[in-house]
Amino acid sequence: MSEANPIKPYLHHAKYYETDQMGIVHHSNYIRWMEEARMDAMNQFGISYRSMEESGIISPVVSVSCQYKSMVHFDDTVQIQAKVVKYNGVRLDLEYEMTDSITGELCTKGESTPCFLDKEGRVISLKRDCPEVHEQFRLMLGK
Amino acid sequence: MSEANPIKPYLHHAKYYETDQMGIVHHSNYIRWMEEARMDAMNQFGISYRSMEESGIISPVVSVSCQYKSMVHFDDTVQIQAKVVKYNGVRLDLEYEMTDSITGELCTKGESTPCFLDKEGRVISLKRDCPEVHEQFRLMLGK
Amino acid sequence: MSEANPIKPYLHHAKYYETDQMGIVHHSNYIRWMEEARMDAMNQFGISYRSMEESGIISPVVSVSCQYKSMVHFDDTVQIQAKVVKYNGVRLDLEYEMTDSITGELCTKGESTPCFLDKEGRVISLKRDCPEVHEQFRLMLGK
Amino acid sequence: MSEANPIKPYLHHAKYYETDQMGIVHHSNYIRWMEEARMDAMNQFGISYRSMEESGIISPVVSVSCQYKSMVHFDDTVQIQAKVVKYNGVRLDLEYEMTDSITGELCTKGESTPCFLDKEGRVISLKRDCPEVHEQFRLMLGK
Repeated sequence: MSEANPIKPYLHHAKYYETDQMGIVHHSNYIRWMEEARMDAMNQFGISYRSMEESGIISPVVSVSCQYKSMVHFDDTVQIQAKVVKYNGVRLDLEYEMTDSITGELCTKGESTPCFLDKEGRVISLKRDCPEVHEQFRLMLGK
Repeated sequence: MSEANPIKPYLHHAKYYETDQMGIVHHSNYIRWMEEARMDAMNQFGISYRSMEESGIISPVVSVSCQYKSMVHFDDTVQIQAKVVKYNGVRLDLEYEMTDSITGELCTKGESTPCFLDKEGRVISLKRDCPEVHEQFRLMLGK
Repeated sequence: MSEANPIKPYLHHAKYYETDQMGIVHHSNYIRWMEEARMDAMNQFGISYRSMEESGIISPVVSVSCQYKSMVHFDDTVQIQAKVVKYNGVRLDLEYEMTDSITGELCTKGESTPCFLDKEGRVISLKRDCPEVHEQFRLMLGK
Repeated sequence: MSEANPIKPYLHHAKYYETDQMGIVHHSNYIRWMEEARMDAMNQFGISYRSMEESGIISPVVSVSCQYKSMVHFDDTVQIQAKVVKYNGVRLDLEYEMTDSITGELCTKGESTPCFLDKEGRVISLKRDCPEVHEQFRLMLGK
């Protein structure tokens, strides 16, 4: 990913219970790892997902996708590089690259798009309703 | 289990994503299956867990245990016989026997104890606060 | 989906442990439900995934995607209509439409692409190596 | 736990996907965390679970139990102190204490008992078949 990406990579150590009988990590878990990496990226910019929810904003995912390039095994550590590719104050488009933390081999590419809702399920604009959070998401975009 | 048990068994078909690289169902999933069987048993007696929560009662689990007797594999169907062994209006003690639905072989035995809390996390007595639900739980005990 | 789709829909009853603290089914679970629906569709055509694996063929997923249209809650039953949109003997492209089994409302659309490997991880052609399985996958395509 | 316990505690950061709609970590996840802590403890003594499996030994769990004392929430970090309470060369009895890493409050107590099997599913004695692994497990006992 571009050097301009201000997000630092996140590490996930693959757990035994994440494997399936093929002897590899079950493909559904990568969707969970993308969530981990997204929340970690937000933390890096001072946005606590926990506080955001406590203040009445939830952030359900509108779409996800994942392309599996090489298999991840139990006890492997995967480096997940999240990147904000688009942010308009209402929704966020993220991309993820997962590589083996030792070999650097590309394991998985993924995308996810969370939106922002109030407790009644209405779409909210962070730009209007949470300008300080909005500013941080903008900083995550990098140049 | 005793013929007097008024709860009908519940079936669970083991899913691929429930396996691990040992080629068997991961042991944590049986805890989930016990929850499924408990909610199914409640449904059999007209107690909807969903409605119970909507009316402000949650039912977190205080303890669980599980003894694994034989391995369950992907695509096996397990018959789960829940039994209420104790109920005092405040907490519920359940036992579970899981057997292979075809061979009848015993796979797993388990126990779980849910309690009943209001939304502020205070223990409530169903006997006092929800007498009609209380009566149904009593019927689940059988003779 | 087209009336020519020879695959019958699959039902999934949303479990309590599939929810998250937003009060809805966690978005990663739909990826698992697509796997369930795919294996059920194969069963409808006499292809047992279990037997396929026992004969030395594994079928890892190359890519998945999912678009979330409306939220699914605990205790909802979702009808999942799988459709084979492409099959060339080497990989399979499936689409899924998940609707609420009572209201018919569209919940989720998804796609997954499994491939076929031998135990050494080499891509195999079902057309060449398993002509009878190949024929069944062709039938799943419909007209 | 006793000061003589030679196992260092393991930390788990509770993930969003581990919560349920009660707003707390689903009780089945603690069983998974006990597995994480067990494998971490083995690593501390130079026993790689991965290598053990590659050498033909699997270690399925014979029984687990868990008592829930206080709720764990998303984004909490839990300190898990594993302790080997019994080891006879054939099976291992472990206890776990999970505490909030900040407040020190006791969240959960648990027990698990893995055994050791060869690839044909026969019980093996580590004492006889893997004396160097056996010696490490003995060291995990402490005084």
